[in-house]
Amino acid sequence: MNAVNLKDKLDTFSEHWSPRIVADYNGNDVMVVKVKGEFNWHSHPDTDDFFLVLRGQITIKLRDADVHLSEGELFVVPKGVEHCPVAADEAELLLIEPHGTPNTGDEATATTKVRV
Amino acid sequence: MNAVNLKDKLDTFSEHWSPRIVADYNGNDVMVVKVKGEFNWHSHPDTDDFFLVLRGQITIKLRDADVHLSEGELFVVPKGVEHCPVAADEAELLLIEPHGTPNTGDEATATTKVRV
Repeated sequence: MNAVNLKDKLDTFSEHWSPRIVADYNGNDVMVVKVKGEFNWHSHPDTDDFFLVLRGQITIKLRDADVHLSEGELFVVPKGVEHCPVAADEAELLLIEPHGTPNTGDEATATTKVRV
Repeated sequence: MNAVNLKDKLDTFSEHWSPRIVADYNGNDVMVVKVKGEFNWHSHPDTDDFFLVLRGQITIKLRDADVHLSEGELFVVPKGVEHCPVAADEAELLLIEPHGTPNTGDEATATTKVRV
């Protein structure tokens, strides 16, 4: 029963696009991640995808629009909607996805989410 | 399909303990709330309760411990666990609960969650 300090968790790793699980919420993984560069286009057919920017800026590219997010801004990608996150400079995010959701949208290419 | 700026949403109201819904995530209400003083002791028998401090500090009193949270710290109260949030000074939080969850743990006393 301890507070989770997000900065302390982010300080434990440096890899990009490699989410770390920091808490559980009703079967969802609450994660922090460092991002830089462009991820892949993907969608999650069975779940929304929660992004909150903790530091820096990202763009979530959608097929028909771009959503720009700065620190303190969040966006929930609706399930089934194709998206591609991009960060020109390193940014840090809080993510929430149901446990077992492949971050790339594909089990074959998904990053294993480590608990920290 | 717009970014949600949490500070902008918080600037739309001043009441304490009156959550505003800012986004939906898989049937959950993503909310911001301003808090000050002591809330009531309650529990949610069917859901965990997600707290992230955006500004200030709070204590989540549990029956056998206190969890102190500062800005950038989160805590998930497990379902069924009695808790009482307290803030000596005004603080701002991000909350996540399944849609329809009474914030007081009791429909009779719950605050209506308004969408902003």
